[in-house]
Amino acid sequence: MELIGERINGMFSDIKEAIINKDPRPVEFWARSQAEKGADYLDLSTGPAVPASEQPLVMEWLVKTVQGATGLPCCLDSTNPEAIEAGLKVHRGRAIINSTSADQDKINLYFPMALKYNAKIIGLTMNEKGIPKDAASRIALAMELVVGADMHGLAMRDLYIDPLVLPVNVAQDHCPEVIETIRQIKLLADPPPRTIIGLSNVSQRCSERRLLNRTFLVMCMSAGLDSCILDVEDDELLKAAAAASVLLNREVYCDAFIKTFRR
Amino acid sequence: MELIGERINGMFSDIKEAIINKDPRPVEFWARSQAEKGADYLDLSTGPAVPASEQPLVMEWLVKTVQGATGLPCCLDSTNPEAIEAGLKVHRGRAIINSTSADQDKINLYFPMALKYNAKIIGLTMNEKGIPKDAASRIALAMELVVGADMHGLAMRDLYIDPLVLPVNVAQDHCPEVIETIRQIKLLADPPPRTIIGLSNVSQRCSERRLLNRTFLVMCMSAGLDSCILDVEDDELLKAAAAASVLLNREVYCDAFIKTFRR
Repeated sequence: MELIGERINGMFSDIKEAIINKDPRPVEFWARSQAEKGADYLDLSTGPAVPASEQPLVMEWLVKTVQGATGLPCCLDSTNPEAIEAGLKVHRGRAIINSTSADQDKINLYFPMALKYNAKIIGLTMNEKGIPKDAASRIALAMELVVGADMHGLAMRDLYIDPLVLPVNVAQDHCPEVIETIRQIKLLADPPPRTIIGLSNVSQRCSERRLLNRTFLVMCMSAGLDSCILDVEDDELLKAAAAASVLLNREVYCDAFIKTFRR
Repeated sequence: MELIGERINGMFSDIKEAIINKDPRPVEFWARSQAEKGADYLDLSTGPAVPASEQPLVMEWLVKTVQGATGLPCCLDSTNPEAIEAGLKVHRGRAIINSTSADQDKINLYFPMALKYNAKIIGLTMNEKGIPKDAASRIALAMELVVGADMHGLAMRDLYIDPLVLPVNVAQDHCPEVIETIRQIKLLADPPPRTIIGLSNVSQRCSERRLLNRTFLVMCMSAGLDSCILDVEDDELLKAAAAASVLLNREVYCDAFIKTFRR
């Protein structure tokens, strides 16, 4: 499974400060640390404190700083298309755009951008009406993303569909619907689109956050999850992912399977 | 989810010794300890060291000793029908017979026995040809158990189907098939039969046994597992089960959900 490190995000106070002060050290520190833990991609988000007009420059700076430190590809996380494009322009290798909604105008904006910069893209199962509650409605939006990819000529393997994880303490009934959505997304096309979630959201403001995170990750992997934005610094979480990969017969069992999973 | 404590089994040396010496204390100790940890049932097995002719008396003694200490209902675990029946005769409340295969002669022996003693029964998805490898063949045998229950007049909620968990280090390809079998068993009848596994088998002679156990439990719960024979003394395992119950929206989230799960 692809691991996308979540830590370089302006929601964390050290990254927020680093952005304000244009201090590359905290960004480089977390880039290297997450790379060592086994991250395949690094998610980059300016956070909500940066004004929209400055977001393109900050995203450009984050991409250059992270790729200077690690060379890892990045997942450009913003609701601002100018910030996404500024990051894509300086990114080396194949970036992931995070994200487009299933609204037609967003699909028509972001899918051509992905193709222009040879990037992959995350599509959310939500539109201007919000996030649907049940799996069937999420799948209907996933199908709009699949059709959009097909119409724009985006390869299905470059489309990641995110069924949108909400916190279990406020939207508990969504959790099993997300799992079922992941399972059904794999039936939408052949080859199917990829599936991805932002894991930590499931436990926002909950007790036992890490227990909830690793339990939900295992459930989603069992349903067919391909990729996950998560806390790669959480050892127990990566052990659970390693065990799930073995039990799903995706990685060969050996006594050192935890080490093998992390390469 | 129903928790069935696995610890009173002649495979463990202290229980083996207790059986040989007719010493009730280790049996009582593990009965009380597992009850405190939250077990709903206690599995009782004489183990392979007891000669067949003595198994009925040993099973009777185990049932009396355990129910004298805790009052919990028992899961009578034996391949010897005389031992099963001896246990049923002295059991108070509703026992679970563990188990019958899907062979017709076994179905015709054990299902009437379950009805006679008002017991529930575990049916294994195996027959004289062995354990099938794929989910479809396991489901075919599960359907024979469902039809057998229907013909004998056994209520579907009293039939537990066990898709047979094998160790991941020798039969890794079986693991995802077991998960898929659990999911499909719930589609066989309405109301559906229950599903059960003997969890610890998945990690026999593996490294990281507890990690593999709790990861596989979460996957099976996500597929619809109702009941599990497991190590209730393993705290992390029960925490994982509590988290899975919340994330599947089967138990209401509260900050003390781990404590709530164990009552």
